[in-house]
Amino acid sequence: MHGYMNRILRVDLSDRTFSEESLNQDLIHDYVGGGGFGVKLLYDDMKADVDPLGEENELIFMSGPLAGTGAQSFGRFKVFFKSPLTGGFFKSSGGGFFVPEMKYAGFDAIIVKGKADRPVYLWVHDGNYELRDAAYLWGLDCDDTHTLIREELHDPKVRLACIGPAGEKGVKYAGIFSDRRTAGRGGGGAVMGAKNLKAVAVRGRERVPLADPEAFKALVKEQVNRYRSDPGFEHFSKVGTQNPEFTNVLGLFPTQNFREGLLPDYEKIDSSAFNEIRVRKTRCHNCMIQCGSITKMNFGKYVGAWSEGPEYETIWAFTGPMLCNDIGLTVAADKLCDDLGLDTISAGVAIGFAYELYEKGILTKDDTDGLELTWGNEDPVLPLIRQIAFREGLGDILAEGTRKAAEQIGKGSDEYAMHVKGLELPAYDPRGGKAHGLNLMTANIGADHGSGYAGQEIFGVPYKGKPVDRFAIEEKGEMTKFNQETRALSNLGIMCSFAARYNPPEAFGKMLSVATGHKEFQDTDYLWLVAERVVNLERMFNVREGFGKKDDVFPDRFTKETMTKGTSAGQVFEADELLLDYYKARGWDQETGIPKKEKLKELGLGFTVD
Amino acid sequence: MHGYMNRILRVDLSDRTFSEESLNQDLIHDYVGGGGFGVKLLYDDMKADVDPLGEENELIFMSGPLAGTGAQSFGRFKVFFKSPLTGGFFKSSGGGFFVPEMKYAGFDAIIVKGKADRPVYLWVHDGNYELRDAAYLWGLDCDDTHTLIREELHDPKVRLACIGPAGEKGVKYAGIFSDRRTAGRGGGGAVMGAKNLKAVAVRGRERVPLADPEAFKALVKEQVNRYRSDPGFEHFSKVGTQNPEFTNVLGLFPTQNFREGLLPDYEKIDSSAFNEIRVRKTRCHNCMIQCGSITKMNFGKYVGAWSEGPEYETIWAFTGPMLCNDIGLTVAADKLCDDLGLDTISAGVAIGFAYELYEKGILTKDDTDGLELTWGNEDPVLPLIRQIAFREGLGDILAEGTRKAAEQIGKGSDEYAMHVKGLELPAYDPRGGKAHGLNLMTANIGADHGSGYAGQEIFGVPYKGKPVDRFAIEEKGEMTKFNQETRALSNLGIMCSFAARYNPPEAFGKMLSVATGHKEFQDTDYLWLVAERVVNLERMFNVREGFGKKDDVFPDRFTKETMTKGTSAGQVFEADELLLDYYKARGWDQETGIPKKEKLKELGLGFTVD
Repeated sequence: MHGYMNRILRVDLSDRTFSEESLNQDLIHDYVGGGGFGVKLLYDDMKADVDPLGEENELIFMSGPLAGTGAQSFGRFKVFFKSPLTGGFFKSSGGGFFVPEMKYAGFDAIIVKGKADRPVYLWVHDGNYELRDAAYLWGLDCDDTHTLIREELHDPKVRLACIGPAGEKGVKYAGIFSDRRTAGRGGGGAVMGAKNLKAVAVRGRERVPLADPEAFKALVKEQVNRYRSDPGFEHFSKVGTQNPEFTNVLGLFPTQNFREGLLPDYEKIDSSAFNEIRVRKTRCHNCMIQCGSITKMNFGKYVGAWSEGPEYETIWAFTGPMLCNDIGLTVAADKLCDDLGLDTISAGVAIGFAYELYEKGILTKDDTDGLELTWGNEDPVLPLIRQIAFREGLGDILAEGTRKAAEQIGKGSDEYAMHVKGLELPAYDPRGGKAHGLNLMTANIGADHGSGYAGQEIFGVPYKGKPVDRFAIEEKGEMTKFNQETRALSNLGIMCSFAARYNPPEAFGKMLSVATGHKEFQDTDYLWLVAERVVNLERMFNVREGFGKKDDVFPDRFTKETMTKGTSAGQVFEADELLLDYYKARGWDQETGIPKKEKLKELGLGFTVD
Repeated sequence: MHGYMNRILRVDLSDRTFSEESLNQDLIHDYVGGGGFGVKLLYDDMKADVDPLGEENELIFMSGPLAGTGAQSFGRFKVFFKSPLTGGFFKSSGGGFFVPEMKYAGFDAIIVKGKADRPVYLWVHDGNYELRDAAYLWGLDCDDTHTLIREELHDPKVRLACIGPAGEKGVKYAGIFSDRRTAGRGGGGAVMGAKNLKAVAVRGRERVPLADPEAFKALVKEQVNRYRSDPGFEHFSKVGTQNPEFTNVLGLFPTQNFREGLLPDYEKIDSSAFNEIRVRKTRCHNCMIQCGSITKMNFGKYVGAWSEGPEYETIWAFTGPMLCNDIGLTVAADKLCDDLGLDTISAGVAIGFAYELYEKGILTKDDTDGLELTWGNEDPVLPLIRQIAFREGLGDILAEGTRKAAEQIGKGSDEYAMHVKGLELPAYDPRGGKAHGLNLMTANIGADHGSGYAGQEIFGVPYKGKPVDRFAIEEKGEMTKFNQETRALSNLGIMCSFAARYNPPEAFGKMLSVATGHKEFQDTDYLWLVAERVVNLERMFNVREGFGKKDDVFPDRFTKETMTKGTSAGQVFEADELLLDYYKARGWDQETGIPKKEKLKELGLGFTVD
């Protein structure tokens, strides 16, 4: 067995038992690894209607076969669970160094279920494991949790995936944090909190076995050359994603709770502005891109504030939704969310939602403890983040996510809840890019840009050799399927999405094959098949939960309100046509949105309907 | 050369030059190490009237010959400098792991002078050194500084001595922090800040050479047995110094800015109360005492607050001076001071001083931004700590220390400034223990309990085989000299003061001798001579700065106000008699408080008067 450690650790917190299993050869062949393993294991382990915050929900901390090897950009961790925010399948992904260390500790995956009777953390090291008391860590922020666990274990090289107060309090979009890198989306932190699991700590000295080490080394050399020779590499390595001008230019940087797509004075938060406050680059395990940054404010209201980030989505989350443009606020809010353990996207959207309700008079000063949620007023943002994390006042409602918050608040507030399947929309207005939007509408985890990013529309990447009209609806169903499967394919190795351009399927397949000894992984047609299998199995997980066409739906704003500002002015999202086109491309039933039986059988997913 | 690394690093920040020197044989023979080296180097390097916050002041980070060996309890670091708080000689001491790592990096001492033109940190590793940019770290708290430097250097095992915002802002009692262990007193942090030196980072793999490794190992074994067989060891190891009842019982736990010595309801903060919130023990390098604790509040107003500590002095600093008794406040205030980089003793006394001025009407709500500084009101304490650290409002004045703050405020406020030589008094009312008080009045660095702790009065340790009357004044001059030299002796190895009972001079001398190969260190008479030499050289440093009898003086409160509560009721401090008795025991001039020439020559300190 190569690439894989051939060892999965299962932990049941309820009775504090552990078991180990080796990898099934069929699983490897049929699902390759990473995102493939994640969905298959979760599908098999779970049944319908499990309470996401109950004992039966699982958390699967998953690695890919290339993680922890000398290869570039495969260090990210991915956590699989049923989401308390969406009620469906979820995969949440973060950077850092956790997953390579988990493999060095001996395991491809750690699967946690049950619920501990009091706070614990899981300590996995050199093939051993134990649950340790975490009562003393309960309530601590993520940074302090890292520090104290490392000190307790007398090993500063321990890596963690942990939660902050938001996860403990069951905030539905609490994330999982590893050295300020975040598997932020979908509420994995709330699942951990509900299990009384403060952290998973890993450390080890095993090496990842490779089928052909010499050939692999040569492939890594080629890989590194591809990075170095890419004309965009140097710039991206410098700026990372701190360039919110790119979507403003396209008129799809959502403002005022997704009303429009252009932020006034956006140069205050553009890449030049970030170049001025960037103090150091940071990176994940074995990744020469080093797209991350430490930023620190040396002027303005938030002088002294610092964070690792903010990344593009976070820059947006604390500007666009509430029509603010203070770069310092983005830094301070990013750090506060990292400390308290919140997903920045959902937090920002929930706050923007509250701003709009305040404008409409649905929320008043009585509801906000006196905070004035007027467009452009940034002062309430940090207090609201704190209130959300600790579930105080209005924050207790916003902590449920916009979908449930709207249910609680009523008064027509659901019109302003900007989510798909319960997951808050990220920093792209779907009206300005139809394939990009179509992915947001159909992605299995809800409105997730990462599940099928339309580089053709955002960055002008050619499709079938040609440039793409981002406003056109033709071919967008097929293109969305392609984009989703492109991502699902690289996700078999949990490849960083920013590295995909340097690691095309052929090269990736070769690396997989040489690392694992599985010749079939060299065949890109085969990898595309597995990718489609994965997307469909995720879908079937949701179908089992009752999801269907009714859940592939946008807020009316996108389908009924025409944009008026910036270069996407005049656009709406033609949801009906686009969705049918997508279902058709997918071989899914047009009425129900459910994969057809023959499609499933063709993909080897007959077991989901038999 | 054994025990010592035989290498001192000198850094001049002004011109960014480095130089190395080896240890002088005379220095070793005459001063042994640690506190001996520190005062001799500082005395020789400096001249009178240097501005403590100017380029010419030095910071000497000093190790002892047993640090980093297998011996127990020698891991503390000591920093020597001219104090911006007292204007005189200062040595400030903290725990942790810094000094062993500094030796592993190759150096017995690091001596920093000059001033960098912009923020830097010093990175010393495996015999190499460099200054690195710290602009991005400026403004960060101590914890974040540790995290980001370790990440920048890609080595989580780096040890630091750093400052927080308080040091940067020149708070006169800003401390130097290493993993939440603090060289807190005297303003070393302000000296670092004035030099634009955010941190000293050390890491290395050298081993401390021993003259006779086998014999040393045997001595360490004996040492460990002495610890284990001590009847008080287990209890102290459990509780550490979190037992403020011991001074309340003696009626010398200072309350209301040192008016009385008994805290109402002190059982709210006694060792039983701390047993309930202690969540883990912590320790310094190679120290089985592990006197430290992580505490965390699980009830009350400060629920969720945690700290490493608070130690006895800190527990007192945020209760007694302002007549509060909330254990949670002590935890929260301790952490805040650790984060922001403040000495807790001086901070607490400065706040207590402000409370008394408020009572007297010298300060009003206009001066306090609306804070009500009434006895027993704990709410202003955390805000005042922040204001002091960032030098805002009243905090900007309190940041100068009580002596200078009283000068600024005027209106007779100097009467309430509880300091000796500018250093705020610690948690012992001198009226309730005359030798303990006499040390506070005469210690070279100001009111420092550690310079000559009177265990005879506080813990009933026999003196000359007999119990001691703590209220009596007879023999207290001689006893104070003995206590100060006891400390100076163990301080030749920078031994932890809590370890002194397990390491009597004979055993300590043997270890020194076997480690270094210096046979003369086995001779305890010789060590006592060196100890007296050290105390007198410290004194001569101060004499050169213009210090004399006028500086060995208490606030009138201790000499004129009789205590009325608790077991020390009826006591005042008989300063005049006690001081003359002390000078006589010391061989110092009764009129001036200056060591007599013949005493200095007898001690080999002729160079201070020639």
